Amino acid sequence: MRMLINVPETVVADALRGVAAAHPELTVDVENRVIVRRDAPVAGKVGLVSGGGSGHEPLHGGFVGPGMLSAACPGEVFTSPVPDQMVRAAAAVDSGEGVLFIVKNYTGDVLNFEMAAELAEDEGVRLAKVLVDDDVAVTDSLYTAGRRGTGATLFVEKIAGAAAEEGAPLERVESLARRVDEVSRSFGVALSAVTTPAKGSPTFELPSGELELGIGIHGEPGRERRAMMTSREIADYTVDVLVADRRPSGPVLLLVNGMGATPLLELYGFNAEVHRALKERGVTVARTLVGNYVTSLDMAGCSVTLCEADEELVRLWDAPVQTPALRWGR
Amino acid sequence: MRMLINVPETVVADALRGVAAAHPELTVDVENRVIVRRDAPVAGKVGLVSGGGSGHEPLHGGFVGPGMLSAACPGEVFTSPVPDQMVRAAAAVDSGEGVLFIVKNYTGDVLNFEMAAELAEDEGVRLAKVLVDDDVAVTDSLYTAGRRGTGATLFVEKIAGAAAEEGAPLERVESLARRVDEVSRSFGVALSAVTTPAKGSPTFELPSGELELGIGIHGEPGRERRAMMTSREIADYTVDVLVADRRPSGPVLLLVNGMGATPLLELYGFNAEVHRALKERGVTVARTLVGNYVTSLDMAGCSVTLCEADEELVRLWDAPVQTPALRWGR
Repeated sequence: MRMLINVPETVVADALRGVAAAHPELTVDVENRVIVRRDAPVAGKVGLVSGGGSGHEPLHGGFVGPGMLSAACPGEVFTSPVPDQMVRAAAAVDSGEGVLFIVKNYTGDVLNFEMAAELAEDEGVRLAKVLVDDDVAVTDSLYTAGRRGTGATLFVEKIAGAAAEEGAPLERVESLARRVDEVSRSFGVALSAVTTPAKGSPTFELPSGELELGIGIHGEPGRERRAMMTSREIADYTVDVLVADRRPSGPVLLLVNGMGATPLLELYGFNAEVHRALKERGVTVARTLVGNYVTSLDMAGCSVTLCEADEELVRLWDAPVQTPALRWGR
Repeated sequence: MRMLINVPETVVADALRGVAAAHPELTVDVENRVIVRRDAPVAGKVGLVSGGGSGHEPLHGGFVGPGMLSAACPGEVFTSPVPDQMVRAAAAVDSGEGVLFIVKNYTGDVLNFEMAAELAEDEGVRLAKVLVDDDVAVTDSLYTAGRRGTGATLFVEKIAGAAAEEGAPLERVESLARRVDEVSRSFGVALSAVTTPAKGSPTFELPSGELELGIGIHGEPGRERRAMMTSREIADYTVDVLVADRRPSGPVLLLVNGMGATPLLELYGFNAEVHRALKERGVTVARTLVGNYVTSLDMAGCSVTLCEADEELVRLWDAPVQTPALRWGR
């Protein structure tokens, strides 16, 4: 096992202690597993809470801060957080303007956020929920009824977060988040399997020289397995799948995302091919983000997310953000 | 071979096309392999140029922009750039205030930057050079006479870049860069070998269940190989080596750096152990950066860099920076 850990049982708690040590601008409750921006609740501002299994870092904890999430709830590796975490997070960030839960579409997450919403409402928090389900690879999956939530989560959290920071009311933040999910599509490819600390060996077998097209962020099976393809071929395949599912009628925000173990050198080369493939199909790109943002531990591979963005969405994308993983603007 | 590439021969050019597509704020000369901030030369400002073999991304291209490098010259993978690249970069960024070359201590880089400096001076550019040699693992190495340059490069580029942005003259920018190198120490650990596109197989053998202490960023051998250690043990070993070489007499800037394939979840857990180990040895931390910044393609592992920083260095570290990989402040 090639892991930089103590024991599998403490991986998430250890990481949270490390987040606390590196980021004094965040409040980290290690015991109860909640990461909150230090100045929460912010008067007059809607709170944004997300969360999910650990192993996808920087998602979600790395997206907590001004202009994005108010709080994040990390579960065990590849395991939903529990309702108590979400209820605590909602209480910590609610200024009276209400809270939006941003939920990736996995059965455990959906159930636990649903339960947490009921509990938080009982405590007087006005709550809305939005489901992210952007992955076009498969209809149902190992842990999912309907499409999986992957890369679009970053766009939903950034754009809804910007609107909340500007003082938009809950209904508007919710409708923006839903709109971003509706105009976003993702597709991922694995070049290697993923190894969780608890298992210590790859969660599936992917022989060298083969790749899995349509992989999920927990190593869930995709559409098909093929002999290794070039970066150019993977870009063409991926963009074809995305555009066939939903052809953007205007410019897109583009996320070229690494699964964790693919070098940035390769990701940028892949980005060149994705740009070429989009251009050949008449899709224009307004903004590009390249890097490891929605990962799957040590999996090699990549995903592409397109988010069709009108001027308003581009403006909210460009708005200032100050989180560990995304920072720009003032 | 599990790589997201077309063919090994075009990996660097493909990546540069991808950088150009993602970052309109940079000027990328793909043919001549130079990345320059778009507004260069900036009137009244010293130019900062670095470069080195590719495969360490985001170093150096990801550090080009206001507040950090003026230009970067990427060589082939793990191969020095050629003098022509550095001469072009110097010409592109010189406003008349002179140019500082920041050179990691590897024999090829040292020779080629030396030759480039002579050529650029012949063309009338006022030039200074600083060598980065922070890696305490070994005295000489496969590609090095003296200590290797690794993580401290990030601190040198950031702090000298901030001073240059404020209008400091060449002599001052150079002396600051030298000072940062002098007070910085690094040590790295590999949990897996590294595979270059050209070779297609690991450049050295590291059996599962073993790690290499004191690894270089090209997979050069370190001090010793041991049976797998815990995150806590690696942090204790690393901090002991660093503090034995140079005990900081004041607070440090801390870089907890991933080698490329180690998940952020593990890196943050390791950061908690490094903070603990430093505290136990009486070293206080002023600022912490955790992430994959000075990498070795797909190698799993980590390195730790300590940079003793007085108030002035902390202020320059905190100063605004706008590059693809480091962004904060205005």
